[in-house]
Amino acid sequence: VELAERILTGDRRALARAITLVESGHEETAGLLSRVYPSTGRARVIGVTGPPGAGKSSLVDRMIAHERGRGASLGVIAVDPSSAYSGGAILGDRVRMIGHSSDSGVFIRSMATRGHLGGLSRATGDALDLMDASGLDVVLVETVGVGQDEVEVVELADTVLVVLVPGMGDDIQAIKAGILEIADLFVINKSDREGADRLEAELQHMLTLADNDRPRPQILRTVAIKGEGIDELFAAIDRRHAGRGWEESARERRRARAGHRLEAVLAAELRRRVERRLAPGQWEDLVEAVAERREDPYHAVESLLGDLPPSAGALGTEEGP
Amino acid sequence: VELAERILTGDRRALARAITLVESGHEETAGLLSRVYPSTGRARVIGVTGPPGAGKSSLVDRMIAHERGRGASLGVIAVDPSSAYSGGAILGDRVRMIGHSSDSGVFIRSMATRGHLGGLSRATGDALDLMDASGLDVVLVETVGVGQDEVEVVELADTVLVVLVPGMGDDIQAIKAGILEIADLFVINKSDREGADRLEAELQHMLTLADNDRPRPQILRTVAIKGEGIDELFAAIDRRHAGRGWEESARERRRARAGHRLEAVLAAELRRRVERRLAPGQWEDLVEAVAERREDPYHAVESLLGDLPPSAGALGTEEGP
Repeated sequence: VELAERILTGDRRALARAITLVESGHEETAGLLSRVYPSTGRARVIGVTGPPGAGKSSLVDRMIAHERGRGASLGVIAVDPSSAYSGGAILGDRVRMIGHSSDSGVFIRSMATRGHLGGLSRATGDALDLMDASGLDVVLVETVGVGQDEVEVVELADTVLVVLVPGMGDDIQAIKAGILEIADLFVINKSDREGADRLEAELQHMLTLADNDRPRPQILRTVAIKGEGIDELFAAIDRRHAGRGWEESARERRRARAGHRLEAVLAAELRRRVERRLAPGQWEDLVEAVAERREDPYHAVESLLGDLPPSAGALGTEEGP
Repeated sequence: VELAERILTGDRRALARAITLVESGHEETAGLLSRVYPSTGRARVIGVTGPPGAGKSSLVDRMIAHERGRGASLGVIAVDPSSAYSGGAILGDRVRMIGHSSDSGVFIRSMATRGHLGGLSRATGDALDLMDASGLDVVLVETVGVGQDEVEVVELADTVLVVLVPGMGDDIQAIKAGILEIADLFVINKSDREGADRLEAELQHMLTLADNDRPRPQILRTVAIKGEGIDELFAAIDRRHAGRGWEESARERRRARAGHRLEAVLAAELRRRVERRLAPGQWEDLVEAVAERREDPYHAVESLLGDLPPSAGALGTEEGP
């Protein structure tokens, strides 16, 4: 609780410690997050996603510089599922961001999963709430890759930038289809490369085909490494926020985000409760039995849970005659 | 149950129907999967992963042809998290695989998530078990991307191929670190391109630095689109299976896989049970309260679950004085 008070006054060391706690799944964080939650919802949250090689880190770098230039404080969450396997190492392009580390207006954290289903989504949401509550004006959530986890993570954002790059080969088709519905703005980075026109034409074509009622995402061009197109990018973001329908769209997004948060917290809490019920060695014995096919996973889970939690509330609606 | 019998006799239509059921999360699948589970564990499962643009689909195409040439029947699971958003469309490179669709020795399915945490991992494991139980000799699990979901999916495999391609830019560093520990074999595809030597040297260097006690993954080269290197790839896979330490490594992997299966099934079952307890509109009301910050997600989950499931078994070990 003292930690919560310090976060609310903008204490960066308290913020760092709290994020470490939520990342490790520490139990006492629930109280902490309950305490700071009413103070969230103020930061502008921008998600940055796209395939590897698109130059997302360079772009984020320039976005930080741009927003610092406007006097805003920033948090950056670099979500890296792969680092759960490499032990959370800060690699290659991450290192560049460290240039901002002496700037007290910028707070940067990498997040990795701990191998738990949904753990990354829960922890990232927690970290975002903590940064938001600590008074940072803008939070950038950058992801590596475009898997389900990454999609869930960018769903935390008010504005989602999908970064693409010319000449990425055939599989890009699959990616583009998948991110079409989460993109608020497309950024063609490294747009001085050959193929930028073709990529933009392809995107335009796909957007024409998409029949959803969301406003059609704008397509912007940047050369992040040279700082080109960054002003235009923020102008487009600002226009969105000032635009017609923004209030309603923001409200819907807040509701969707609340739903995702609830699901992630629920999954984590259920898991924790089941873990506490296990006798020592019980889980390992079950795993062994399933591995040797003496037991199947469905029956094992049934035997583990019994009738818990018992059904109540809306019952029987799924049971047919 | 009748469906289970038909699957066990190799009926492909029954298999297709069962996979559709598990993908939709249908309740009656638990009994079905319990019934077929003892007949699983026979298929050789090969995971194929790597970043977009690496040519995984072409490679899988050639692998199918190779194994058909040896008289083996194959299942292919194409895991595509993005298609949850595009409505499961079969896109671009997927279409090529349809060339095998008239061959009764090849059974191909795309899997997408339904937006549920861990849902993809559970459904893919179920589909794999069904294919295995139906008597297919080899199952190829191909993923798009390298997020956490994909990593969980390839953990179902006996042998994991990580497909890379020369000249993929800077972010590849981050990817390589993440997949280093899941790769059994590295495949440098499109190896007639410039940069193959450099990529191999980089990989070798990273493998030298990695201090784990697993056997060091071999690095192979292919040009899938021309069919080059496929024989050598299977020779390497066969060598692994015949090699020293394979039995023990396979046993460990079966155990790890059983653990992942249990976790995924547990998460899905807990979710289902909570959903059944909800009164009509209760979830929506909670989401609204969290969105408006009248309620925080942690407190909301507490109020939803109450003391369910009550703690039992190994209790108190986490509680300090």
